[in-house]
Amino acid sequence: MAQLLSASCYMKVSPSEKLSSKCWNIGSAKCPLSYTPQNSNSMFKRLVYQGDNLQKLTVVRATTVPLNQETKAQSGASSFENKGNSSGRKRVMVIGGDGYCGWATALHLSNKNYEVAIVDNLVRRLYDHQLGLDSLTPIASIQNRIRRWQSLTGKKIQLHVGDICDFEFLAETFKSFEPDAVVHFGEQRSAPYSMIDRSRAVYTQHNNVIGTLNVLFAIKEFREECHLVKLGTMGEYGTPNIDIEEGFITITHNGRTDTLPYPKQASSFYHLSKVHDSHNIAFTCKAWGIRATDLNQGVVYGLRTDETAMHEELCNRFDYDAVFGTALNRFCVQAAVGHPLTVYGKGGQTRGYLDIRDTVQCVELAIANPAKPGEFRVFNQFTEQFSVRDLAAIVTKAGEKLGITVETKSVPNPRVEAEEHYYNAKHTKLIELGLQPHLLSDSLLDSVLNFAIQYKDRVDTKQIMPSVSWKKIGVKPQTLQA
Amino acid sequence: MAQLLSASCYMKVSPSEKLSSKCWNIGSAKCPLSYTPQNSNSMFKRLVYQGDNLQKLTVVRATTVPLNQETKAQSGASSFENKGNSSGRKRVMVIGGDGYCGWATALHLSNKNYEVAIVDNLVRRLYDHQLGLDSLTPIASIQNRIRRWQSLTGKKIQLHVGDICDFEFLAETFKSFEPDAVVHFGEQRSAPYSMIDRSRAVYTQHNNVIGTLNVLFAIKEFREECHLVKLGTMGEYGTPNIDIEEGFITITHNGRTDTLPYPKQASSFYHLSKVHDSHNIAFTCKAWGIRATDLNQGVVYGLRTDETAMHEELCNRFDYDAVFGTALNRFCVQAAVGHPLTVYGKGGQTRGYLDIRDTVQCVELAIANPAKPGEFRVFNQFTEQFSVRDLAAIVTKAGEKLGITVETKSVPNPRVEAEEHYYNAKHTKLIELGLQPHLLSDSLLDSVLNFAIQYKDRVDTKQIMPSVSWKKIGVKPQTLQA
Repeated sequence: MAQLLSASCYMKVSPSEKLSSKCWNIGSAKCPLSYTPQNSNSMFKRLVYQGDNLQKLTVVRATTVPLNQETKAQSGASSFENKGNSSGRKRVMVIGGDGYCGWATALHLSNKNYEVAIVDNLVRRLYDHQLGLDSLTPIASIQNRIRRWQSLTGKKIQLHVGDICDFEFLAETFKSFEPDAVVHFGEQRSAPYSMIDRSRAVYTQHNNVIGTLNVLFAIKEFREECHLVKLGTMGEYGTPNIDIEEGFITITHNGRTDTLPYPKQASSFYHLSKVHDSHNIAFTCKAWGIRATDLNQGVVYGLRTDETAMHEELCNRFDYDAVFGTALNRFCVQAAVGHPLTVYGKGGQTRGYLDIRDTVQCVELAIANPAKPGEFRVFNQFTEQFSVRDLAAIVTKAGEKLGITVETKSVPNPRVEAEEHYYNAKHTKLIELGLQPHLLSDSLLDSVLNFAIQYKDRVDTKQIMPSVSWKKIGVKPQTLQA
Repeated sequence: MAQLLSASCYMKVSPSEKLSSKCWNIGSAKCPLSYTPQNSNSMFKRLVYQGDNLQKLTVVRATTVPLNQETKAQSGASSFENKGNSSGRKRVMVIGGDGYCGWATALHLSNKNYEVAIVDNLVRRLYDHQLGLDSLTPIASIQNRIRRWQSLTGKKIQLHVGDICDFEFLAETFKSFEPDAVVHFGEQRSAPYSMIDRSRAVYTQHNNVIGTLNVLFAIKEFREECHLVKLGTMGEYGTPNIDIEEGFITITHNGRTDTLPYPKQASSFYHLSKVHDSHNIAFTCKAWGIRATDLNQGVVYGLRTDETAMHEELCNRFDYDAVFGTALNRFCVQAAVGHPLTVYGKGGQTRGYLDIRDTVQCVELAIANPAKPGEFRVFNQFTEQFSVRDLAAIVTKAGEKLGITVETKSVPNPRVEAEEHYYNAKHTKLIELGLQPHLLSDSLLDSVLNFAIQYKDRVDTKQIMPSVSWKKIGVKPQTLQA
């Protein structure tokens, strides 16, 4: 899929002008459903806003600086009034800033007075097109999101549309924006997606690993003081029969002691890609003095943050399908439409969970308290542990309060994982930095459930049941029919 | 570089016919010095032997089956007299069978009456062309090597020239050869090569990780009983301050105990690629029931095996340059030409070493005693530990016996690594299977040193000094000038 995504656009939004540009119309490209690296022709290497002549082709309404300024930015010269950073504000690049966690984080950081640039190839929207999926909530284009944010708050967010696997594009964004911190959400983040077929497995590992390598090289070459805040996953650890520590464990063995990276046992090609990233980043911290924080995040639930709640055009995406939906969000949608909660297997699978309001808080804490040069720091980013069974019971109880009868059924587990296991993962480092957790109370669950009910007419129940099997993944590209 | 290497040829060698084919003339392709994944156009997707009309274009002399039989093989139909395996012999696919360890292993297994197919894109020869390097020993083409082997022993070795990152090619080789075991040497195997520039770092991780993913998918899809014997490296472990176990370590922590993957601390993009492979393989053993042996090999030294010593056309490659040369081999060449032995830094860097005759023995032991279905088994494949300082002293002493004065000098360490450290790595599992080590005796070192002296007129002293720096690696493609 990389071949579809190396288009690179630069956009700076101001509320005073209108732009319609083919540039954003990425969905109109011919998109094969499978990815084959040896055929990765770049269909369009670098698209630049081409002016009014394309207005009639699109429905995107957004605003931009005049073409001559934009051309300067493309050439690497500075055209930003915030360059030189006379404001003293930290510049944060949010890679993957159009996604579920990335969008909420970009707005939160902008609201907290950071200078924010979103870097995204918008491929998350392409996955939906290709798999026939859609967010429960209607979401605006990234251009309209940014325009709305600026009109509401007066705060500007830069947008660089392009693929970080395209190093030439990434280098230009680094040279023009000069980030003090990079928050890297820009990876294929679904375990089931990575297990659809060989081409998606290969795509996931290539995209995630090479994208992160490029970010590391960009920091080394152009911005060596820049702090990398990388989203990992609690899934890197698997389910060991001992306590999970935050990144490292002190081992005494045959009378000697060392503190070593915590052993990893990931259980999908996606989770494995994050393990690979962690090893690559740790090496560059040691070899090059990169400063990095690896946020091993749990399962995120919830919809609203203070910022996304300000206007419907700022609304975040909410995935409930079997590929991108996560357990608690999916259960709330199932309850809302009267579909039994689908517990995979025995339901004893226990994981760390957190509210999306804590995701944005954690990332801000990491940025505000950066790692030292050469430090590879790992935080386990979640607030509470639940088993899938626990979650089903909590949603059932919340449903009762709202007058909804909720049923639960066990479905064959499409994954390969322990269904009953010990799980005790430490998560104190972000608390020590000041995290104030939003715990999963009844009232919170009511609000998520109420959102699901509000949008229930948009639910496509065909998306709910698991469609991807860990054991049945094959080498033939999986195509979907209408 | 993947774009150069997706040419796929099938060749079956018999001594009775002659073939000259453009197919083998891979060096004639236009070869950029750097690799950019987003531009990975396949210049020639699949080259097939095209008959006599190309004779005048090449100097390669090799033999093949008639075109009509070959065409059948290409289409997936069987044309092999050894199909059905009425002989009861195990079929072993040796990926990377034209390389230093791969060639010696392929011959050894053929000599031990296994049916052997070499799968190789011959890119190791391309690296030499591109970097201006050459083996100390003159090496014949893979076609002539195989022809000579057959004429000497009557034993056939199949040759499939192509890139395992090209899944279509790999699938065809699996379907036609139906391996009982796959020995996978087919990776970019130099740490300094992976640290030349960004493009080589990306190439190394892409090539190694995706190639291995493809092998895993091919086994799952076409040959689920096939035993994967994968070459890893002792460098995956780094230099922890506790004993290194064979792949797994039992940890007691906060009163609970589990046996977990041994923590990895690799120190180059190459070594990291092997760590990634190990995690991917372990997952597929668990999820799909793949049977795999990960051979974490130490530094290999030596030139001759029983088989490669049979004829000069069977002679193995011997690398002494700063990119592909390994410590002991390089020291012997330095001693032979009167160049001071180049000890990097303090020289306390300690690693496991083994004779190439033990490499081939270990691989055979792994094949003869396969892992169980679903088992991910790790063997540390080396026989003795030495520090770089130890090696320099041993070579100096051996030189004295031959009347050569050997000097040693410390050069700035181009790598990032501990120069004095604890090191105690276990290596009992292959001994338990029957390994009879060839230890580094004076007499052995004399013979390696004598080989170096025999070929010393071929030494290019410009290749000896380190040219790649772990800290100075940049994003611009490094090009070499004549």
